[in-house]
Amino acid sequence: MEFTKLGEGKTKEVYSFDEQHVLLKFKDTVTAGDGAKVDVIKDKGVINAQTSALFFRALEREGIKTHYVGMYDERTMIAKRLKMVPVEVVLRNLATGSIVKRLPIKEGEVFDPPIVEFFLKDDARHDPMLNYHHMEFLKLMTRKEAEQVEEVMVRANKVLKGLVERMGLVLYDFKLEFGRLGDELIIGDEISLDSMRVRDREGRIYDKDLYRKGQPLEVVASSYAEFLERLKRVV
Amino acid sequence: MEFTKLGEGKTKEVYSFDEQHVLLKFKDTVTAGDGAKVDVIKDKGVINAQTSALFFRALEREGIKTHYVGMYDERTMIAKRLKMVPVEVVLRNLATGSIVKRLPIKEGEVFDPPIVEFFLKDDARHDPMLNYHHMEFLKLMTRKEAEQVEEVMVRANKVLKGLVERMGLVLYDFKLEFGRLGDELIIGDEISLDSMRVRDREGRIYDKDLYRKGQPLEVVASSYAEFLERLKRVV
Repeated sequence: MEFTKLGEGKTKEVYSFDEQHVLLKFKDTVTAGDGAKVDVIKDKGVINAQTSALFFRALEREGIKTHYVGMYDERTMIAKRLKMVPVEVVLRNLATGSIVKRLPIKEGEVFDPPIVEFFLKDDARHDPMLNYHHMEFLKLMTRKEAEQVEEVMVRANKVLKGLVERMGLVLYDFKLEFGRLGDELIIGDEISLDSMRVRDREGRIYDKDLYRKGQPLEVVASSYAEFLERLKRVV
Repeated sequence: MEFTKLGEGKTKEVYSFDEQHVLLKFKDTVTAGDGAKVDVIKDKGVINAQTSALFFRALEREGIKTHYVGMYDERTMIAKRLKMVPVEVVLRNLATGSIVKRLPIKEGEVFDPPIVEFFLKDDARHDPMLNYHHMEFLKLMTRKEAEQVEEVMVRANKVLKGLVERMGLVLYDFKLEFGRLGDELIIGDEISLDSMRVRDREGRIYDKDLYRKGQPLEVVASSYAEFLERLKRVV
């Protein structure tokens, strides 16, 4: 691309588009274990870019602010230029993953109301959990902002969970990242099977846990593709 | 003792005293690493019982409710019978210990306002950190109770930090445990060098970190004894 590269993460490249906007180019890489495991799945970037676009538009329609502006090409999103906060905000409807290892909570337990958690994006420290005090001290966000972010997570959950349910699937949990636009914290990054856990009612896994658990890359690829096709039918 | 034993922890035995009260007998054991390392220091139980009594009385004088009633003998406290919440609440004035390992925070950094953290008492899981959502779900305490507990921690800090400063020392952090008395959460357990980190202005360690870092038991013993003598002079 003829644009200046601003940075690169594990699965996306960021380019300068104009003063207010960046381009987010979704790569075909898939990673797990804080980046310890890396592979390439052809066109995964296209699928995750499209999936994210559909979810962002659905959130915007419900009045939830995101960085989404439009698509530049099939794997490249035009997004508002945010100052990203290096925090992963997780909302859990059903227990799976790290929470069942950390706490005396069983796989599949229902969280109603959902549980919201904050983690520092820091692979070397394995993304440690944060509370309001830590985030204030590390100048990540104020307590008031963190409480507002939790409210946005709950509102976003209603939209995302609703869509996933209309696809006949179950949203176990998802992760969002936020960035500053002026005085506001709005949703950035992506919303895809890399950042949410989705299963069907029989427990069949659709998301990146397939990759984490060592399923063949073709299985991961076809699951991501099938999910996108089903999502298109309900939005 | 002629009382019925209700339970036993790593450093204390609990006996039934009367319907409203228990006896807490402080043992001579010292432990670290979630109980992996255990030793005996003669009369440590006496020193920790006395130290705790002085701190509890100081808190009570400032209107902060604790389980402290009086002393039954030199190592045995008469305490209100609480339904203990299995959570350790930590307040940090200066960074040391687990927080400098978990987060990008350097040894000795000053927290003003102090940082408060909640940990589940669960040796097998290495005392995982909790947020308000976890505590609500696990029925440990409500969000409102947790916020009240944080306020009590800040008030207790003013008293404890003040006393330690009058001893010419610095209070890095401390841990309290809370229990239910009717509808109220009040301070239980102990307040001693097992549960707080204290150094002098040159960095000399007075607390259980001496034991954690492998100092001889005599060094630990004389430090605990010296601390109690100095505390007696300022209360």
